Amino acid sequence: MKHKRSVFFISDGTGITAETLGHSLLAQFELLDVRQMRMPFVDSVDRALDCVERINAAGHSDGVRPIVFLSIVNPEVSAVLAQANALPLDVFARFIGPLEQELGMKSSHTIGRFKGVEESQAYHRRMEAINFALAHDDGVSSAELDSADVILVGVSRSGKTPTTLYLAMQFGVKAANYPLIPEDFDRNALPGELARHRSKLFGLTIAPERLQHIRQERRPNSRYASIENCRFEVDAAQKLMRREGIRWLDSTRKSIEEISTIIMQAVHLDQSGF
Amino acid sequence: MKHKRSVFFISDGTGITAETLGHSLLAQFELLDVRQMRMPFVDSVDRALDCVERINAAGHSDGVRPIVFLSIVNPEVSAVLAQANALPLDVFARFIGPLEQELGMKSSHTIGRFKGVEESQAYHRRMEAINFALAHDDGVSSAELDSADVILVGVSRSGKTPTTLYLAMQFGVKAANYPLIPEDFDRNALPGELARHRSKLFGLTIAPERLQHIRQERRPNSRYASIENCRFEVDAAQKLMRREGIRWLDSTRKSIEEISTIIMQAVHLDQSGF
Repeated sequence: MKHKRSVFFISDGTGITAETLGHSLLAQFELLDVRQMRMPFVDSVDRALDCVERINAAGHSDGVRPIVFLSIVNPEVSAVLAQANALPLDVFARFIGPLEQELGMKSSHTIGRFKGVEESQAYHRRMEAINFALAHDDGVSSAELDSADVILVGVSRSGKTPTTLYLAMQFGVKAANYPLIPEDFDRNALPGELARHRSKLFGLTIAPERLQHIRQERRPNSRYASIENCRFEVDAAQKLMRREGIRWLDSTRKSIEEISTIIMQAVHLDQSGF
Repeated sequence: MKHKRSVFFISDGTGITAETLGHSLLAQFELLDVRQMRMPFVDSVDRALDCVERINAAGHSDGVRPIVFLSIVNPEVSAVLAQANALPLDVFARFIGPLEQELGMKSSHTIGRFKGVEESQAYHRRMEAINFALAHDDGVSSAELDSADVILVGVSRSGKTPTTLYLAMQFGVKAANYPLIPEDFDRNALPGELARHRSKLFGLTIAPERLQHIRQERRPNSRYASIENCRFEVDAAQKLMRREGIRWLDSTRKSIEEISTIIMQAVHLDQSGF
């Protein structure tokens, strides 16, 4: 029995919080025909009325009431949205009350998360980290390695670049990227400039078959993409990392969220920013 | 009255969902001395016991019980964590019950969000979009403009690149980047290859003073960074966008989350992926 189900993410801000939680929750169910709608910046009664109309229309067309993830600060807007014929799951309201009581203060009822000095500092750090990741996508100077929070090593296309970007975007962590190349394998030792930063090093490895697939998309039928070469490079990289005592993980079946979180723990960056 | 307060984000997955919601909620309070700890991959009773110890130690040292944002799928692990002397805010448990009832099925009680065919497809799309953004950081071929979901135009350093990356990372949207340069202003018209894609174009503008500041950090005391040149470029870009009927926004005081969400709405990409 699989019928269509509409899911709305409604917020007076970007709705990214509601959507993130909503996706985590929906991933716990085997839903086959879900239509998802994002409705951000719903910050007036008029816009809320428009949402109610769209929710009710979707429910009518589906034959079953929609699920609505809400993250709304303004109580007037909330009250309007509560009139929709839907299952409302307010990811915000549920927790604000207990927090107010625990902290002995009222919440500021302001929209979104982009405010306050600390928040701005954290934001500035994120932007700097993104620029750092972009500027150092391929190779870094010795001075720049000094300022990196973490340095990812691994063969070309083992997942380093998306991971450095995610670390920057989500955690404000400055991650540099050091691709292992044949001369590193010949030497079977890290270059001196890297060896100085051993505590910041983290390795990524990948199954040779997966690496071949990824490289093949970029440079079809090259020696670079051949399974023999992929096997050789992965094996040489693992030997090198083992010899140098570099912690590493296999990125083959992990998401960048998982890879990044493991790295944060490994290099002791698990004190959360804010 | 500001005392220290410890906040924990504990999850049997990455904890990113719990942390995202936790940050949104905490941003509603004027908290001056918060220490935040991220504890991911807490997927066994032993690890949960270790967390309880750390929570209780933090509460003891702060003189006030910690706030604990939880996202735990395994009920045994949950039960252990419930023993901590803390305010527990379980961002997951609160909504799973109502969802099970509404959907008439049991949740799968599996950890994390990286599973299922749709999820993998969405993940693959995100990775492709990230690679697209990286490959086209500066200028794009005509064939590649065809495959872009959205094309950001604006002067150098107006915020296009971080926005294309965020659009890719968060929404799996392929965003290309077209920097407006003096010859575009001289012509006061879009190049033909862009004009073909008018419905996908979105402009970013920025306050000249802010632009000067950003450019100054990269090329100190250059003509490029001078306030006169920044004023000229911003003015010329706005004229051009107005003349060509391109929607745009001012990125000066907006976060990349806000900018990206506005763009998603404007180019009608607001059907949420999953």
